[in-house]
Amino acid sequence: MTLRKRIHEIIQPAAGDDWLSRLFDLFILSLIALNVASIVLESVRELRETYARTFWRFEMFSVCVFTAEYVLRLWTCVEEPRYARPVAGRIRAALSPLLLIDLLAILPFYLPFFAVDLRFLRSLRLFRVFRVAKVARYSTALQTIGRVMASRRSELLVTAFAMGLLLILSATVMYYVENEAQPESFSSIPATMWWAVTTMTTVGYGDACPITPLGKVLASFIAILGIGMFAVPTGILGAGFTDEMRRKNAPPRRCPHCGGDLPPE
Amino acid sequence: MTLRKRIHEIIQPAAGDDWLSRLFDLFILSLIALNVASIVLESVRELRETYARTFWRFEMFSVCVFTAEYVLRLWTCVEEPRYARPVAGRIRAALSPLLLIDLLAILPFYLPFFAVDLRFLRSLRLFRVFRVAKVARYSTALQTIGRVMASRRSELLVTAFAMGLLLILSATVMYYVENEAQPESFSSIPATMWWAVTTMTTVGYGDACPITPLGKVLASFIAILGIGMFAVPTGILGAGFTDEMRRKNAPPRRCPHCGGDLPPE
Amino acid sequence: MTLRKRIHEIIQPAAGDDWLSRLFDLFILSLIALNVASIVLESVRELRETYARTFWRFEMFSVCVFTAEYVLRLWTCVEEPRYARPVAGRIRAALSPLLLIDLLAILPFYLPFFAVDLRFLRSLRLFRVFRVAKVARYSTALQTIGRVMASRRSELLVTAFAMGLLLILSATVMYYVENEAQPESFSSIPATMWWAVTTMTTVGYGDACPITPLGKVLASFIAILGIGMFAVPTGILGAGFTDEMRRKNAPPRRCPHCGGDLPPE
Amino acid sequence: MTLRKRIHEIIQPAAGDDWLSRLFDLFILSLIALNVASIVLESVRELRETYARTFWRFEMFSVCVFTAEYVLRLWTCVEEPRYARPVAGRIRAALSPLLLIDLLAILPFYLPFFAVDLRFLRSLRLFRVFRVAKVARYSTALQTIGRVMASRRSELLVTAFAMGLLLILSATVMYYVENEAQPESFSSIPATMWWAVTTMTTVGYGDACPITPLGKVLASFIAILGIGMFAVPTGILGAGFTDEMRRKNAPPRRCPHCGGDLPPE
Repeated sequence: MTLRKRIHEIIQPAAGDDWLSRLFDLFILSLIALNVASIVLESVRELRETYARTFWRFEMFSVCVFTAEYVLRLWTCVEEPRYARPVAGRIRAALSPLLLIDLLAILPFYLPFFAVDLRFLRSLRLFRVFRVAKVARYSTALQTIGRVMASRRSELLVTAFAMGLLLILSATVMYYVENEAQPESFSSIPATMWWAVTTMTTVGYGDACPITPLGKVLASFIAILGIGMFAVPTGILGAGFTDEMRRKNAPPRRCPHCGGDLPPE
Repeated sequence: MTLRKRIHEIIQPAAGDDWLSRLFDLFILSLIALNVASIVLESVRELRETYARTFWRFEMFSVCVFTAEYVLRLWTCVEEPRYARPVAGRIRAALSPLLLIDLLAILPFYLPFFAVDLRFLRSLRLFRVFRVAKVARYSTALQTIGRVMASRRSELLVTAFAMGLLLILSATVMYYVENEAQPESFSSIPATMWWAVTTMTTVGYGDACPITPLGKVLASFIAILGIGMFAVPTGILGAGFTDEMRRKNAPPRRCPHCGGDLPPE
Repeated sequence: MTLRKRIHEIIQPAAGDDWLSRLFDLFILSLIALNVASIVLESVRELRETYARTFWRFEMFSVCVFTAEYVLRLWTCVEEPRYARPVAGRIRAALSPLLLIDLLAILPFYLPFFAVDLRFLRSLRLFRVFRVAKVARYSTALQTIGRVMASRRSELLVTAFAMGLLLILSATVMYYVENEAQPESFSSIPATMWWAVTTMTTVGYGDACPITPLGKVLASFIAILGIGMFAVPTGILGAGFTDEMRRKNAPPRRCPHCGGDLPPE
Repeated sequence: MTLRKRIHEIIQPAAGDDWLSRLFDLFILSLIALNVASIVLESVRELRETYARTFWRFEMFSVCVFTAEYVLRLWTCVEEPRYARPVAGRIRAALSPLLLIDLLAILPFYLPFFAVDLRFLRSLRLFRVFRVAKVARYSTALQTIGRVMASRRSELLVTAFAMGLLLILSATVMYYVENEAQPESFSSIPATMWWAVTTMTTVGYGDACPITPLGKVLASFIAILGIGMFAVPTGILGAGFTDEMRRKNAPPRRCPHCGGDLPPE
């Protein structure tokens, strides 16, 4: 077995009893978890100021490991039949979602070396949080959710379209009704959409709500209608999730009459 | 083929490979989208004042196109067997929902030429937003939702009736309990209905909420009861939507015993 | 046919083509609707003061009609086999839910003649709103909902018990955590229950919400747990409602193999 | 029958007609209910100050009874085959969930005798509320819910993991977007999580909500996505609960063809 093949085995999620591969997975997963913790804790001013050096060192270490991991993945990917060709295969592998995530997880660190203004740099720190997405390679949970969303794509698109229309219609109506009474909260149709979203999702912060009698009557109808519409994707996702789980857990079905196998429901 | 028949083919939603018909559909759909964008953007004061002329010209252009489209649809509708009679058929076509929407989409532009006071004119601008409904001719999403709502009409009416009763009952009770403590938010039963709607839909803006102990106890029971009732139409719509989607996507069912066709579930 | 039997036929909800019975139903239903409208409108101060006499006359008229209806129902109920015995039957009929509602709808008018202090009298006006419940005799919607709630009684009781426990537990915990920081909103466990209800029903008025870090962490867990628990009755009612509707609308099922009838699902 | 066996019969939840056992159950259940009432009422300042002695006496009495009950349960548990060995069996019994709850219900009373500072003592009073959990031994409702949660453990864990990720991601994004405009409500990522929880659960108190346009746009997408995700456990629990109830209430199924028993659905 070549070294490349062995390394490929180790850095892929462990399938069998390969303890080195398991150890590697555990190490990467722990590093991801620590990175998320570090991002969250660094946002607390006191911690950021007190432990600035520790955060910086940990960031350096993480980027080194993740960069090495990325390079190794790119080098060894040709072991897989579908990426077998040395150049074209590696380019196709680099464009696969999981490796793109791996790249995005380290890119914000390297970009500052190539120039650019400080404002942009600050917002780059935000993108570090996408390191959490590296977990997708190991998490069956996220893969399940991704599969559910993909399998219900057409339903979700249909309802998203209807939700968009309802949002525009109700924001327009409420804008014309409430604008005069509340020129600040309902200053324009895009501003009124914030009201429409907070109402139809039933979040209802209360920072924008109708005060004219006509506005309240219309808002009541919009709320009742819109809630129904905004709950549909929830229902679709829920049903898809339940189906997925049942399919995974279901014992093979047999016909009670002849004992033959039946297709899953 | 007569010119009228050809035009009828073009302006109907494209069924096959007729590229001229497809181009026409695309043109109308783009114009609808641009109209919605224009209405939304025009509501932002800065844009309205800076680009007043552009908005006006685009409005003129849109109304011309939509008017021409309406006239052509009315002229060519006799090509369809059900509207074949020249006068009676055209009147019946003009009263069909889709052509009524087409008329409503342009009417607000022409009404000002026939008189009337300025207040009324201002509110006419609101009705321009119903141009978005012209999309119904092309959107299977909206047709699906319409079919779902029609198929569950009886359930929805029953729950609407129960919701109305619950709304009146709880608003009356809360009015008598809270009116003395909060004569402004709970000034009358119709005013208290606003509280009842925001509570039972769980929006809860917080602009009206009980402050007396008895009011809070009653509001708790009303909230728990009312949420159950207001969620029922959401459940009905969701189930109807799922059914509709399954029916559309389901492969024809066959009996596993004899191989004969089975009716869809 | 005796007069009593004929009157019984007329005042019962019309089953066939008896136009007099239908007219009577329509009359009572209209009177109920007008009564509800009158109660709602009378709560608006301007209308109450301007039309005081009209409201009073309409109230007098309504009570007379409803009293006559009640007396006639009690007199003629012996026509039904289960209430056939003159005294015992009438007492049992008077204790049936529908006749109790009829009595409650008129009682608030007569009570003032027997004494009592003014505060109590004022609250009696509230009970007039239960006239709306008289509609239950005619409404299949309400009967459906009643049947659904009865058929799911055991599930609803179980969840109500669990909801009560969760309410007490979370209110107690939050009281101990938040009381010191907010001695007004979280002044006692009963007061904290108001927070717990508004949170778990997701209404969230915002008049009481945790401000300490520990309180926010606990409230997050309580919210996520509690919402799941408080949504269960909604799901139960929704499923029960869908079942009821399907059972009513379903065509009789037949076995595809032998053509025999199958019991409803 | 030995005394120990008889006592064991009495203090276990009554299975048959043993009236002494039933009486004991009723007594313990009433005492639990009274304890909960006492904890709730004691939190009201006026009651706490007026009836301090009564509360104290009732607490003493309750602890005595519960301690006696605990000792008896530990003494008699060896009557059950699985706890038959005098020492090892009793230790294993003491570590069973129900007996641990019984211990926790009385421990807060005894701890103060072994020292410690006053702050800690105050928080011990909170733990008295777990006396309500003693009801689990008798309540089929709680056992049902526990069984449902256990049977859906894997689904619930998967969604909890996805919810956690979504929470961290959205809190991080919103922190970077809103921190500058609202340094107080969005002071750090942990603080922003409070906003994320109140939004995704649709509670929406309104104590923290985005005010920048970009923040509002992102919050809209987060709300729509997050609500879908946070509703999934509700759907899972609801479905599990309905299944559990149906399984318990369902009559045994029979094949319509051969009359043989079928497994429950």
